[in-house]
Amino acid sequence: MSHNVQTVLSAAQEVTNRDLSDAKGPVEVPNGSAYSDHPRLKVHRKYRHVAALHSKVQPSCLSHEATETPSFIGFRNLMVLTIIVMNLRLVVENAQKYGLLITLKLNLRSQDIQTALILYALTPCHLFVAYIIERVAMENAKGAVGKRKKNDPDGSTPETEEEKTDFYYTWWWIAVAHALNASLALLITSYVVYYHIYNPGLGMISETHAIVVWLKTCSYAFTNRDLRHAMLHPGGPESALPEIYSKCPYPRNVTLRNLCYFWWAPTLVYQPYYPRTDRIRWTFFFKRVGEVVALCVFVWLVCAQYAIPVLHNSLGGMAVLDFSAIAERLMKLSTISLIVWLAGFFAIFQSFLNALAEITRFGDRVFYEDWWNSTSLKMYWATWNKPVYHFMRRHIYSPLVGRGWSPRAASAWVFVFSGVLHELAVGVPSHSILGVAFLGMVLQLPLILCTEPLAKKDGTGKVIGNCIFWINFVFVGQPLAAMIYFFSYQAKYGAMSKMAQR
Amino acid sequence: MSHNVQTVLSAAQEVTNRDLSDAKGPVEVPNGSAYSDHPRLKVHRKYRHVAALHSKVQPSCLSHEATETPSFIGFRNLMVLTIIVMNLRLVVENAQKYGLLITLKLNLRSQDIQTALILYALTPCHLFVAYIIERVAMENAKGAVGKRKKNDPDGSTPETEEEKTDFYYTWWWIAVAHALNASLALLITSYVVYYHIYNPGLGMISETHAIVVWLKTCSYAFTNRDLRHAMLHPGGPESALPEIYSKCPYPRNVTLRNLCYFWWAPTLVYQPYYPRTDRIRWTFFFKRVGEVVALCVFVWLVCAQYAIPVLHNSLGGMAVLDFSAIAERLMKLSTISLIVWLAGFFAIFQSFLNALAEITRFGDRVFYEDWWNSTSLKMYWATWNKPVYHFMRRHIYSPLVGRGWSPRAASAWVFVFSGVLHELAVGVPSHSILGVAFLGMVLQLPLILCTEPLAKKDGTGKVIGNCIFWINFVFVGQPLAAMIYFFSYQAKYGAMSKMAQR
Repeated sequence: MSHNVQTVLSAAQEVTNRDLSDAKGPVEVPNGSAYSDHPRLKVHRKYRHVAALHSKVQPSCLSHEATETPSFIGFRNLMVLTIIVMNLRLVVENAQKYGLLITLKLNLRSQDIQTALILYALTPCHLFVAYIIERVAMENAKGAVGKRKKNDPDGSTPETEEEKTDFYYTWWWIAVAHALNASLALLITSYVVYYHIYNPGLGMISETHAIVVWLKTCSYAFTNRDLRHAMLHPGGPESALPEIYSKCPYPRNVTLRNLCYFWWAPTLVYQPYYPRTDRIRWTFFFKRVGEVVALCVFVWLVCAQYAIPVLHNSLGGMAVLDFSAIAERLMKLSTISLIVWLAGFFAIFQSFLNALAEITRFGDRVFYEDWWNSTSLKMYWATWNKPVYHFMRRHIYSPLVGRGWSPRAASAWVFVFSGVLHELAVGVPSHSILGVAFLGMVLQLPLILCTEPLAKKDGTGKVIGNCIFWINFVFVGQPLAAMIYFFSYQAKYGAMSKMAQR
Repeated sequence: MSHNVQTVLSAAQEVTNRDLSDAKGPVEVPNGSAYSDHPRLKVHRKYRHVAALHSKVQPSCLSHEATETPSFIGFRNLMVLTIIVMNLRLVVENAQKYGLLITLKLNLRSQDIQTALILYALTPCHLFVAYIIERVAMENAKGAVGKRKKNDPDGSTPETEEEKTDFYYTWWWIAVAHALNASLALLITSYVVYYHIYNPGLGMISETHAIVVWLKTCSYAFTNRDLRHAMLHPGGPESALPEIYSKCPYPRNVTLRNLCYFWWAPTLVYQPYYPRTDRIRWTFFFKRVGEVVALCVFVWLVCAQYAIPVLHNSLGGMAVLDFSAIAERLMKLSTISLIVWLAGFFAIFQSFLNALAEITRFGDRVFYEDWWNSTSLKMYWATWNKPVYHFMRRHIYSPLVGRGWSPRAASAWVFVFSGVLHELAVGVPSHSILGVAFLGMVLQLPLILCTEPLAKKDGTGKVIGNCIFWINFVFVGQPLAAMIYFFSYQAKYGAMSKMAQR
């Protein structure tokens, strides 16, 4: 053997020696045999290429025979990231296609603004007219009570026939006066918005304001009627009033101050007295106002940059009823309308109403509940808009049920009524009373019947119910209605709108 | 009063009577006063328009002062639906734009198929060569043991210098033979794939097969070397072998049957004995095979209809380095590559390996763990591909640490080695060894250092770690690498590929 080979060999030998015998640290082997009982024990073994990594029979964690299902929490995070990235891509695509569509130039006629401001100032007057009517009714009732006390101090004599006739006669005229006053509030605004306010956004704000005032007027009239009747006919357990009203009993509540509070309070149901907070937290108030401003700007940007192009691009498909094109636009619009809706919901129901409640020291801030977890459509309609739900329950549903209607029939009537209000709020400002919003509300009834059994089930049933709610609401209801009204509006004012856009 | 007015009045009166006094059912009022203590008690009250719906001070459920955060489970369902709808929209858009791109005509040259089949048949031969080498080494070792026993029956005489030299001489030649054999397995395939297989898909399958055979050959050689050494130098607690190997001790494991089992077993680490199941469940096997077929078809359809157009559309942006266009394509591709990857992962690691394990009665089915919940990149690399992880740990990481390397340096070396394998598997079949796959693996090291502290934190830290893992993996790593290799491939074979597409 030459010297060279010897050197190579000894080098190899050295490596081998190092490799095979570099055993360090404690070695724990239970018995003296060549085979260890703990193949996965972390000891520095002499032989490192022999570890038994496959030492027992065990299934894959996704197989059915696995003893426990693994957690899938990572996929939740993946979903959030996927949605962010997918939308980010659409943002980039939109920027490449359209550039910046947002301009600071507001597409508003000065005449529209003028008309809207006049409506905004005049509509609340109907509340004051309702106050005057109530004031007259109250004086009348107080007079009746005074007369009765004078004639019959111990209250033993029953009402005379004349007294009864007199009371109901007054009652009837008051009802007519209230009905006229309240209806006028709605009719005048609807007429003005439909014929004189071109901008649908401004029109919708004016119309919604009128609906709110109308509902408040109705609630004021209904509640005071019952309170007046209770004063005139005291006693009897069934005529008990809520304990909280004892702090401001009828007729002490019929004051201008009390009415003004109701005018501004974030509720649609009149109560002589509301739970109040101790003080106005100004930081809370300004935070909420900041949220409202930020979210409004956000909604405006999203609409201008993303919703309007999608709506414009849908016109072609709508005109020739190309269903695959309509479906594609609908699905594209659904994400945008969902974002706009969620931002709008938060802006109005969390930020705006909480700010209003803070400034009026209004205590009950449950303007919504966790409607996003609704397992049935019924639950959704009862939780997403508490002020309107309260109004419907107190002034429509309960009285109807009390008169002997079945709960289902009363619910149906609530949805029909609500459909009319929705049609007013959407159809009038967009100058196209199509009945789609109305139908959208009325069609909730069969859907509610379908989803009601799911809410009572566990697990999967509830998830399915929740999914049906979301599909109905986010992917069909909102964007479809938006597209139909947009199409109708464009069919009517298309040229005008394009001119205004330039 | 005329008769007419009288009639109207009595009708109104009747309505009023009905409305105001239709009190039914039990009435529970605790005290006799006009105000009830339970304003929300469900009794049939006389006055229905007076219910106190606002009876206490309470915050909105999304406000900070709310006592408990509401559940947001509904939004999880919404996310799933949003992802489905967003992708459904892309499907419709794709159909409108491209129509059906899938054809049953396979874009394969018959020469490619021939070459791949020859490679597929020849590559495993290297395993048999390794067997022959092992057989020679075993006979040699058995001879040495026999000679020693004959000369020194009670084992008291120490090894002579001649014996030692002889042993190491043999050892060295065996090592060289194994190294040559194994390297040839990889080199021949790589050469053939790079120069003679045009189709990248077929090339990748051939190359991956060669890598698997190469790793198996290496593991077979390393493990048998240690086992042989243990037989030649028995005793000493540090030379203990895993208990499970006692069922098939060296040299009884060096048989053709044992090697063939290792050839087909779904593992890359050689063990003389593996945990086995009792019987083959044929229904389980056919279900898994069905899954493999279905998922492969699915992946093929998704690639042909959705991935290829996106990749083709990315070429323009890549050529002029338009980063916003590249980012947009990247994000569009990310969802598709994620779907393909998840389907491919399931097809290979759950369905294919489980089918293979079932048919070979291989017991240890932990081919992956819940990598989708990884809170750090380290955890991901240790869980998503257990066969390769086992190989790296047993034959690279542990020996290096045993030789005194720091765990960090040993890990780094594992990633460098893994990077070379990735580059081989991607760069060779696509005929463009760019180093991107290699760099992608090596760049995991700094990312692992960054995400490691997050895994030890609770809650948000873990979520952030998981999100970093997903972003790195799904939104940057996979689609970027795919786009770069596709671009490089098209730059080289663009015209040819277009011709083949027609």
